[in-house]
Amino acid sequence: MTRSRVTVIDIARAAGVSKSTVSLVLQASPLVNEQTRAKVNAAIRELGYVYNRGAANLRQTASSKIVGIVVNDLTNSFFAELAVGMDMVMQSAGFVQFLANTGESLDRQREVIASMHEHGISGLIISPARGTEAADFKPLTAAGIPVVIVVRNIAGAKVSSLLSDNYAGAREATEHLLSLGHRRIAFLGGFSDTTVALERVHGYRDALVQAGIAADDALIVNSAPSRAGGVAAVERAMLLAEPPTAALCFNDAVAFGVCDGLRARGVEPGRDFGVVGFDGVIEAQAAVPALTTVSVDPQGMGRRAAQMLLKQINSGRVEAEAMVTSVRLAVRQSCGAAMKDMGRRNTA
Amino acid sequence: MTRSRVTVIDIARAAGVSKSTVSLVLQASPLVNEQTRAKVNAAIRELGYVYNRGAANLRQTASSKIVGIVVNDLTNSFFAELAVGMDMVMQSAGFVQFLANTGESLDRQREVIASMHEHGISGLIISPARGTEAADFKPLTAAGIPVVIVVRNIAGAKVSSLLSDNYAGAREATEHLLSLGHRRIAFLGGFSDTTVALERVHGYRDALVQAGIAADDALIVNSAPSRAGGVAAVERAMLLAEPPTAALCFNDAVAFGVCDGLRARGVEPGRDFGVVGFDGVIEAQAAVPALTTVSVDPQGMGRRAAQMLLKQINSGRVEAEAMVTSVRLAVRQSCGAAMKDMGRRNTA
Repeated sequence: MTRSRVTVIDIARAAGVSKSTVSLVLQASPLVNEQTRAKVNAAIRELGYVYNRGAANLRQTASSKIVGIVVNDLTNSFFAELAVGMDMVMQSAGFVQFLANTGESLDRQREVIASMHEHGISGLIISPARGTEAADFKPLTAAGIPVVIVVRNIAGAKVSSLLSDNYAGAREATEHLLSLGHRRIAFLGGFSDTTVALERVHGYRDALVQAGIAADDALIVNSAPSRAGGVAAVERAMLLAEPPTAALCFNDAVAFGVCDGLRARGVEPGRDFGVVGFDGVIEAQAAVPALTTVSVDPQGMGRRAAQMLLKQINSGRVEAEAMVTSVRLAVRQSCGAAMKDMGRRNTA
Repeated sequence: MTRSRVTVIDIARAAGVSKSTVSLVLQASPLVNEQTRAKVNAAIRELGYVYNRGAANLRQTASSKIVGIVVNDLTNSFFAELAVGMDMVMQSAGFVQFLANTGESLDRQREVIASMHEHGISGLIISPARGTEAADFKPLTAAGIPVVIVVRNIAGAKVSSLLSDNYAGAREATEHLLSLGHRRIAFLGGFSDTTVALERVHGYRDALVQAGIAADDALIVNSAPSRAGGVAAVERAMLLAEPPTAALCFNDAVAFGVCDGLRARGVEPGRDFGVVGFDGVIEAQAAVPALTTVSVDPQGMGRRAAQMLLKQINSGRVEAEAMVTSVRLAVRQSCGAAMKDMGRRNTA
């Protein structure tokens, strides 16, 4: 694979040690003392030797230092931040990662999983495309390769998972909008066939029922989970005979689109309409109005998923572990809470 | 690397062919007829055989089907879209990619290049971190591994490059703002030590000089090339004794931040202040106001970079090629052109 001509023998000669000592250093063996290690590493740097890890992985029959990461849509900041979190942990641990973007295509997902498998990944972290089935992970699990599912759950997959508490987050966000006096609250965006959307809609509905409000299905408007999807969803919602006065959005990308769509109609988010997102992407804080959102901490989630996978790779045992991380409502301006509070104080 | 127990012999037996015929099919050899190939592939699917490409790459001493991609900041939509473009072409060509995010850290960049090299990449596409030197690519080029630099040029690197025409784009954008009647035009955001920023500032300055306007250095405000950086930059610019009435922004992320910062001061972008971005990320179209921007077409750039690299990998010859792609000013609402035109029509 590498075309470098420097060999272990050259290194050994330059460092004045045996060939097997060089090999031990390359394998990070604890049997070599610091001084010898430094001498060998200096020779490696000087001669420009490149360790052929592909060959080493085969010789040692140990697991490779490669993992696979598969996400749905890298152009959605949530997935980009998730990938950056994973990258941080993987780089620190000396791993490199294959990364693939499926764009929700099952064919593409099948192809990249097979290709990553052929290229010897030691583990996979995947946010599964819509319609993924438990059987899709079979080739990996049968080969003893650990898999961590993130974001979206797959029933019966028998692999590890790291999910957010979508139900609780959506419920808390809806209760927050109710506490601000809203009664016509929409749920905007997202595909209705993902577990994530189902869980979030469930939390939203339960909060309404708890408050004695009859759920109105017309207020649940599906769309692509993107900024453009948000624009489209709020346009449809505002055409209702009784339009909403606030919305819980499927994710932050949709929420930004909802703010765009409202402004295009001359409705100011945070003043004339309450908007709450879901994810907590970096942009949510900087946006004007700053976005009130159910914060999942995407980078933190990426880091935790990477740690979960590394733990299994390093232990050499594949033990499925399911983790649901708690979420936190970050109240900012787009929901109108600041204005409301001011109003309350004035009338008190 | 793979722990699958199915061997080539099992496949050969199931398909009723010789072991070497199976090997030829696995290597996609043209020597095997279609019917035999289909029979072997059916047996492979049925038995769940996983081709160990790591071992195959070593045996064949051919180049691997792995490339490396290194970007600066995946949370900036520009780089995410660039990576998605590369991913499309690489997947279609049967390649998998290592992807790493440097966050502008040279140490990190050095580490990931070395690690990808050890893992046998056949080529690298990189948007270099600030301060990268030509020598940083030496280990790869010395080993005959093709490198394509994208976005930011590195003097003397002797590798292929795919860049945008930053000078012409910035000049055209500034001329556009001048044509709308602006005389106090700021250049907001970006680090002054990258070739990209230098080229864009150069185009901006030349347009002003051409229009007989003395360039005012106070109107050039550096900041991180992010949304938060844009907010900070416009805040500083608006504190000037003679604040600007329009701005060319270093990139779209900065431009969105500038819109946020203006709104926070009660200044409406596109109505009270002209804003032009640079990049043409997907969000630019959906945003309100829709962002006028110098479109680089990030996904298209990613696809072209991937094609450039694949051409070199497939030809087996490393021939440095330099390409500068033209850019296009997409006039939308944030620059105020629509309003201005309306004004002109009314007074005509």
